[in-house]
Amino acid sequence: MSEAPLLSVSRRTRSTPFTRRVTEAGVKAYTVYNHMLLPTVFESVEADYHHLKKHVQVWDVSCERQVEVSGPDAAMLIQWVTPRNMAKMQDDQCYYIPMIDEKGGMINDPIAIKISDNRFWVSLADSDMLYWLKGLAIGKGLNVDVFEPDVSPLGVQGPKSDDLMAEIVGDDIRSLGFFRHRNYEINGKSYLIARSGWSKQGGFEIYVDGTDNGEPIWDLLFEKGEKYDVRAGCPNGIERIEGGLLSHGNDMNNLNTPLECGLGKYCHRAGMEICIGGDVLLAEKKNGSKKMIRGITIDGDRVPSCTSPWLLTSKDGKLVGQVTSATWSPDYNANLAIGMVDNDHWDHGTELTVRTQNGSRGATVGPLPFDPIS
Amino acid sequence: MSEAPLLSVSRRTRSTPFTRRVTEAGVKAYTVYNHMLLPTVFESVEADYHHLKKHVQVWDVSCERQVEVSGPDAAMLIQWVTPRNMAKMQDDQCYYIPMIDEKGGMINDPIAIKISDNRFWVSLADSDMLYWLKGLAIGKGLNVDVFEPDVSPLGVQGPKSDDLMAEIVGDDIRSLGFFRHRNYEINGKSYLIARSGWSKQGGFEIYVDGTDNGEPIWDLLFEKGEKYDVRAGCPNGIERIEGGLLSHGNDMNNLNTPLECGLGKYCHRAGMEICIGGDVLLAEKKNGSKKMIRGITIDGDRVPSCTSPWLLTSKDGKLVGQVTSATWSPDYNANLAIGMVDNDHWDHGTELTVRTQNGSRGATVGPLPFDPIS
Repeated sequence: MSEAPLLSVSRRTRSTPFTRRVTEAGVKAYTVYNHMLLPTVFESVEADYHHLKKHVQVWDVSCERQVEVSGPDAAMLIQWVTPRNMAKMQDDQCYYIPMIDEKGGMINDPIAIKISDNRFWVSLADSDMLYWLKGLAIGKGLNVDVFEPDVSPLGVQGPKSDDLMAEIVGDDIRSLGFFRHRNYEINGKSYLIARSGWSKQGGFEIYVDGTDNGEPIWDLLFEKGEKYDVRAGCPNGIERIEGGLLSHGNDMNNLNTPLECGLGKYCHRAGMEICIGGDVLLAEKKNGSKKMIRGITIDGDRVPSCTSPWLLTSKDGKLVGQVTSATWSPDYNANLAIGMVDNDHWDHGTELTVRTQNGSRGATVGPLPFDPIS
Repeated sequence: MSEAPLLSVSRRTRSTPFTRRVTEAGVKAYTVYNHMLLPTVFESVEADYHHLKKHVQVWDVSCERQVEVSGPDAAMLIQWVTPRNMAKMQDDQCYYIPMIDEKGGMINDPIAIKISDNRFWVSLADSDMLYWLKGLAIGKGLNVDVFEPDVSPLGVQGPKSDDLMAEIVGDDIRSLGFFRHRNYEINGKSYLIARSGWSKQGGFEIYVDGTDNGEPIWDLLFEKGEKYDVRAGCPNGIERIEGGLLSHGNDMNNLNTPLECGLGKYCHRAGMEICIGGDVLLAEKKNGSKKMIRGITIDGDRVPSCTSPWLLTSKDGKLVGQVTSATWSPDYNANLAIGMVDNDHWDHGTELTVRTQNGSRGATVGPLPFDPIS
């Protein structure tokens, strides 16, 4: 596809508590994520990127839908669906958890938020884990409630996030640890706020409970943020690749295990011995992985948009992997990409050929995250 | 939203076996459905509509993803998730089935295709029923395989569908019954073809097995279809509302029971006594429904696009329902809409007020499907 097509918006591509404000802020493009609108471009992807790295942005990430799991068997159900060891998780923690199916394939990579021993929110990437969690619970006869609450995350991202949030909820928030959450009052109501978000620029996510509370919080952030040059923004295609942040459905799907995705540090023996599909991961750990995610640099000027995987071939023409996300990075002054590479060609420095829709180019395998800008 | 925004396409919004052809055919807009591209406009919604009603169109409905359920417990699992009685279903039948959760709420309304006693395809509306079916099976320890096969439905819709399909697979297909399927050979390979599709103009769905087989079948349909004025098309927003075809996520969601959706004829005692959530439907049948889906006509000239529900109020200002889909119908020369109306205002002929984003208008409750054009 050379030019972006239009998106037909309907009730099914759900609008969010913030959609009216996002429209007023001049959103140019969306994607659909968990059956919901997710903005992708305001001024331009590149202008949004430069602003994000310097100032502070407010992101409508309502599409990170929550699944609430509560009740006596809640902790058991959560541990059943991830190889990460959940035993020591504390009441104020957020855990990035790979969720896998019975074949060890990645079906989501949400943030699990522990609210109490018997109550979790699972803040989803793009797949209906509501039905997975509910199906397992009903099938097994577990004593849990599983439902999607009316909670819409609002991101505050960028280097001035602490300053802006301190204006809203006080200086206490500056001491909130990474992937920790606390409750703070905004407009007279208490909200869960976590130091988290899908950028490497620092920031927070406000879990806005109640659709009607969305616009007043948005407006307050823009009122107090004026002096920080606050703007409406969104997860940024350039910044997230530079930062090596994986996107489920783009860089991995159910055909990839978390080990292949470089998420081995979230796969613990204690978890793998209990969870669905854990046996597959234990075998892979023993026998070695067949492919692995890598940072890949691509030669030449600005690459086109990667809308379907680009095949990677070795110097002797063998198919050895694929690129799934790619971007021109202004700060690296290079094309950066994320892809899966077979074990016989995954060493850093290996030179490959990548086939884009606009022709072939040279590509070099490297680490993910990418080395810092030299 | 006044104008359509752009759609950012990525690997996550999956392209289909036909996307290249759809692009060449001049697609203007998409929606995203089951994490996949679904075309919504070619020439214009209205021009597409007129053509569909006169000729024949080829539709890329790959996004109707299949879930295959096979194995000794397949029939049991399928009956567990729907109130429709599946006991007498034959090997060559397709059943429209409401799928409901434990509260009786609609979570999908797929076509179930019985291939043999132990093998079904569930051809989905827009939610990840793969995880629901798999979660239930794993939780319960059922002896089934549940997976998404590489099968992409290609629709052939419109009054000349029989003629075009007969050119491709022979005259035998003219005798294929409604919602029946048979296997036919195309390009030397056998495909399941059903007389079905999301229009009221008649037609078929070819279940294209294998991504690589997509373009040759598309090309053959266009080669043989030239004399029938074949065009690329898609489910049409005007035609489907005229025809009273419900859209899951638009006209109903998990807050609506199938009885409220007017799908009582697919809710049988034998099914409700076994299926998840069936107890809720049995109670509703006994106590009566609180609201019901209706055809609604709206006064005035062309209504805007309904991107979020429009509230319906009674003459004395009471909130009594909502409109979820609406269109100007050239053939009815009227605005037609679909909505849910409370039981004290659902009688045909009841006059209400509907609040669109561009102001309020008069509206009249009527039957769904709408009465034929007078």
